[in-house]
Amino acid sequence: MASLSVSPGGTLELRLPLRVVLLSAGSAAIAWTLALGLYTRRRGRYAPATSSEDFVRSGVAILRWLTNYRSRTCRQLPIVSTVAPNYLRDSLPATAPEEPEPFSNILSDLSEKILPGLTHWENSASFFAYFKPHSSYPAVLGELVCAGLNVMGFDWIASPACTELEVVTLDWLGKLLQLPERFLSCSAGPGGAVIQGSAGEAAIVILLAATRRAQSRRAAASRSAGAPLLGGAGATADACTGAAADDVGRSRCVVYCSDQTHAIIKKACMVLGLRCRALPTSVETGFTLRGEVLAAAIDADLADLAENWLPVAVVGTSGTTTSCAFDPLDELADVCTPRGLWLHVDAAYGGAYACLDEVRPLFAGLERCDSFCVNAHKKLLVPFDLAALYVADRRPLLHALSLTPEYLRNDASESGAVVDYEHWQLGLGRRFRALKLWFVMRRFGASGVRAHVRAGMVLARRFADLVATSEVFELAAPPSLSLVCFRLMHARVPHGSEDDDALHMEFLARAKARNVFIIRSRLGGRLILRFACGGIEQTVQEVERAFEILRAVARDWMASTMMTFRDVAQHFGNSIAANNYPAAFELLTPEAQAVYSPESLKAAVASMTCAAPGGIQEVEVIEEGILEDWPAKQPGDVASVYVALTGAGFAEAVAVIVVQRNCNLLIRHLEWGRP
Amino acid sequence: MASLSVSPGGTLELRLPLRVVLLSAGSAAIAWTLALGLYTRRRGRYAPATSSEDFVRSGVAILRWLTNYRSRTCRQLPIVSTVAPNYLRDSLPATAPEEPEPFSNILSDLSEKILPGLTHWENSASFFAYFKPHSSYPAVLGELVCAGLNVMGFDWIASPACTELEVVTLDWLGKLLQLPERFLSCSAGPGGAVIQGSAGEAAIVILLAATRRAQSRRAAASRSAGAPLLGGAGATADACTGAAADDVGRSRCVVYCSDQTHAIIKKACMVLGLRCRALPTSVETGFTLRGEVLAAAIDADLADLAENWLPVAVVGTSGTTTSCAFDPLDELADVCTPRGLWLHVDAAYGGAYACLDEVRPLFAGLERCDSFCVNAHKKLLVPFDLAALYVADRRPLLHALSLTPEYLRNDASESGAVVDYEHWQLGLGRRFRALKLWFVMRRFGASGVRAHVRAGMVLARRFADLVATSEVFELAAPPSLSLVCFRLMHARVPHGSEDDDALHMEFLARAKARNVFIIRSRLGGRLILRFACGGIEQTVQEVERAFEILRAVARDWMASTMMTFRDVAQHFGNSIAANNYPAAFELLTPEAQAVYSPESLKAAVASMTCAAPGGIQEVEVIEEGILEDWPAKQPGDVASVYVALTGAGFAEAVAVIVVQRNCNLLIRHLEWGRP
Repeated sequence: MASLSVSPGGTLELRLPLRVVLLSAGSAAIAWTLALGLYTRRRGRYAPATSSEDFVRSGVAILRWLTNYRSRTCRQLPIVSTVAPNYLRDSLPATAPEEPEPFSNILSDLSEKILPGLTHWENSASFFAYFKPHSSYPAVLGELVCAGLNVMGFDWIASPACTELEVVTLDWLGKLLQLPERFLSCSAGPGGAVIQGSAGEAAIVILLAATRRAQSRRAAASRSAGAPLLGGAGATADACTGAAADDVGRSRCVVYCSDQTHAIIKKACMVLGLRCRALPTSVETGFTLRGEVLAAAIDADLADLAENWLPVAVVGTSGTTTSCAFDPLDELADVCTPRGLWLHVDAAYGGAYACLDEVRPLFAGLERCDSFCVNAHKKLLVPFDLAALYVADRRPLLHALSLTPEYLRNDASESGAVVDYEHWQLGLGRRFRALKLWFVMRRFGASGVRAHVRAGMVLARRFADLVATSEVFELAAPPSLSLVCFRLMHARVPHGSEDDDALHMEFLARAKARNVFIIRSRLGGRLILRFACGGIEQTVQEVERAFEILRAVARDWMASTMMTFRDVAQHFGNSIAANNYPAAFELLTPEAQAVYSPESLKAAVASMTCAAPGGIQEVEVIEEGILEDWPAKQPGDVASVYVALTGAGFAEAVAVIVVQRNCNLLIRHLEWGRP
Repeated sequence: MASLSVSPGGTLELRLPLRVVLLSAGSAAIAWTLALGLYTRRRGRYAPATSSEDFVRSGVAILRWLTNYRSRTCRQLPIVSTVAPNYLRDSLPATAPEEPEPFSNILSDLSEKILPGLTHWENSASFFAYFKPHSSYPAVLGELVCAGLNVMGFDWIASPACTELEVVTLDWLGKLLQLPERFLSCSAGPGGAVIQGSAGEAAIVILLAATRRAQSRRAAASRSAGAPLLGGAGATADACTGAAADDVGRSRCVVYCSDQTHAIIKKACMVLGLRCRALPTSVETGFTLRGEVLAAAIDADLADLAENWLPVAVVGTSGTTTSCAFDPLDELADVCTPRGLWLHVDAAYGGAYACLDEVRPLFAGLERCDSFCVNAHKKLLVPFDLAALYVADRRPLLHALSLTPEYLRNDASESGAVVDYEHWQLGLGRRFRALKLWFVMRRFGASGVRAHVRAGMVLARRFADLVATSEVFELAAPPSLSLVCFRLMHARVPHGSEDDDALHMEFLARAKARNVFIIRSRLGGRLILRFACGGIEQTVQEVERAFEILRAVARDWMASTMMTFRDVAQHFGNSIAANNYPAAFELLTPEAQAVYSPESLKAAVASMTCAAPGGIQEVEVIEEGILEDWPAKQPGDVASVYVALTGAGFAEAVAVIVVQRNCNLLIRHLEWGRP
């Protein structure tokens, strides 16, 4: 029945056939006695992993390791990880260890194997890419408590404190952000808030609720009109969702946003099976979604009876990813309210700034919106994941996400006496995430949170001033909040061209090599550089240092690598004058290099100058010899340049045709001698 | 322009109009100088919250507080929180504090305000409800590192270590669970694994991928047949999802599962807009979904050309919530494979047991399934949230969840050279959750994980033995894994009746009052009690102690409160014999109490016995006088009982009609004197 053996490693192995452990009654006593003995013996072997003392000792080591990482190590490592794919698989065993390992092994692996594979988003002094996340020590401790308690919080009764602290803390945050009363749980109405994992999950929840609400209304209107629905696409009952028999199919439901809206909205539509219309924005209106553009799009859909479109929601953005633009919520509400559309505000980044009086005007109209989502893990000092989602009416969420049948729905839950958050989210389980936000608001105080948020704006202002007065950069848009969009100032290639893109991308790569990390985006067709800063811990010195590096990179590069066509021609002449034919050869295009060699260049010069003693002594680009147009000009050709080569007893020349290849200028054709 | 003021609290307040901070160029220098000075001054005020020393000191206090909670406090508190709704709102301020608070305030609030609002799922010695979660100290430290690093991991390049450790760790886990090779990233095929927040989120991802795959296949088949699609519901293009113009609408797509499947699957269908068919199971087949039942349902749908159903997926369960039943994967695969349906295995609870050889037969057929999800936060020693989702082919996920347009899809990503997990999940951002699982496997070793999982089975076996040999309980099903389903052994009311339900629920409440927490469920129409145990830290003594309490509750209750109808009649006679008319009155139904009073009972007895000296001296239920049926019997009536009342000089009687009210027996009618 049961077998007990000693493995080569000296450990006892118990093999119990399934039926013994699960089903057998007769021999249970023997099997159980054997198993219990082994079980008791085993417990001792895993004692380190279950010991309180070991936990505290290892925990202290990790706390110290983390402070060391955040304040020191991460500033010594490359800001963007340089590891190759599968670096970790190659350095870790293929299977879990059979026996327990000491904690010290893990800690040293963290330093030696994990850290080199990280990009140091938060703590590096030179990370100005994306919207830099901001966490804080108090929030990290909040996560520690969350993990240590391992509370189950799917509904109120599962652990009331988990739900109630979330309700209270989100009200605190809502007041700190000066949100309209209707979004608060403590208001008299049906509003409330919930923590989601990310703004993307929040978008799925909201768009589902909006869709179900719109479908129900359309069905009710159709029933009361006594007429069949327009069209019939997807018009069927869904027993599981309780949808009416004359439901409008999801592929007919339309969500409106702008071409600046974050991809999470498109993804949410993809998950839910909705149609997503990204409406155009322009440089003239600051890349915002205007009410008249929105109204026209919706009304066109409503007029299209053949397609039976059902507009369900509009997503406005407070702080777009590219340029931190704010859609005018007032205008959007003017469109949505009379048409009964759900107006959701994706304030993932910008929402945090609502705590500042001086930024409040950008949120005008919020009191007429249906929902609002801010990522506390972006700017509000908590680590990922904490997206705070506020709704003016919780009932559409409950109706869309609750499995509780109609007859069991209770006033307590719908009125807010008891909150069961499982019906406000996609999954069932949830962590006690309110703790970390609670820790932050208590340890920093409301004043500290505001100071932190405001700090980013001060730093961005400083960077913008430096850009505006520099000789190599120019602002691409007015700085907004903590973001500065800028460009290289140049007249080398047409702005917005592929060459212009290549120029900026080459600049980014060079900046990264100097360990300053910023990224590109596109505004009004032109590639731009984004510098995002902020945080109570970031110093003005760090921002100024980053700027100096960026300026040095741009200046050096423009001065050396980025030669003008005159420079290229001059450089070519200088090289052959100095007998440095390999350097001259490097200035040729690959095609020209296939024709010439350093040796053939040397031979050509020798034959032209008749090997005069002293060689070429003067090299001069002749201004009048520069042609910007000529009969055989090819695409990419920049100029034909005439370079005079003078020496003892000769006055020769070479004409070179300079061509643009990506952001390099090269010579594609040579013509030796005076014409 | 800018204003600087001193608030009543003595703090400096800066007010900068928006246009100054954001847009003004002219006065920027002044504003910036002012702001920078304030900003620098402020930084000092929030120093405690940003100081490394403070972090370590506070962190150590939390580590100690957690060990104290897990080993002591949680065993002293009521196992199920007894707080009333809104208890926390009433004890916390209505807004965040304006100024920073010391850490000690938070710690004392954790003890005094948070802990009483928790139900101690994991650490209580008496929690045997649901499927008890199992975390561990090493995993808590993994979460601490995760929060402290605050790594962004949406795609590989964002922080390669985050992605790669997840790939490696899930391969380790897959091998530990003896999963088929096709699910591992290290296999040659397109399989792989990803961490999801919960089995519910995993189900949404999988069912979306399955739906899109089925829709594409149907569309392709229809195109190649050159014929229009059957039916036309939802048959329209969706520009956003890239669905074909002849797409089948989602409300036509069908997911099959059983009536024992967890509600998360129904919820996933609700979110996605799919139809969910829960097929019946029975006690005869151990509450499992059988292949023939499944095949019949699918084939009926396929034959229903008018409805144009599109079967897309089947969900089998390994370890159902109610009875820990295992659907026969082999049978389900036999049905799914030839029909091209996606077969997903929800092994949220049971999956962990796949690491044990003796349980492996329950997973026969897994090598033919398309996906498999196990909640490591249930049994595998990590705190919520870590659902490990394995797929045999990653490509349908990428196609369903990636926004990358077709022409940018790359072989590297699809072949597995680089994994971008954002395309394997609903949201964009993700935490570095692999750390906690990695910590667990290293600190316990594979042998320790197996020992932990096996321990629960040993304990369940012990509990089942105690139940089987007890005088008050009986097994309701064979014990499975760490779960024992049992019932009160009684012949009082029909099994499966409402009274039987009430009886068991009253028992649960009494057990909870004695601080042993188990829950009910329903199997084959009868209410059952679930005792779930397990974990390397749970002791046999704890299980035995819980059993003794449960047995004592049942025995005491049955012996006292739960009188038989004979007991009721006898007790009534004894009470009037003892002149305790209030006690006799309490045995009457409310209706009878409206007719009688203690005084009128006393008067009736006096008139019947003629106030004989010594009163009633003997009370006897006369067996022959018990009627279980009689002409005027009403619903709920249990018996009419004849009670002889004898005293000095009289031999009288009372006939009482005993009726069942919930789980109490009461007297609804009295008839004084011999007939």
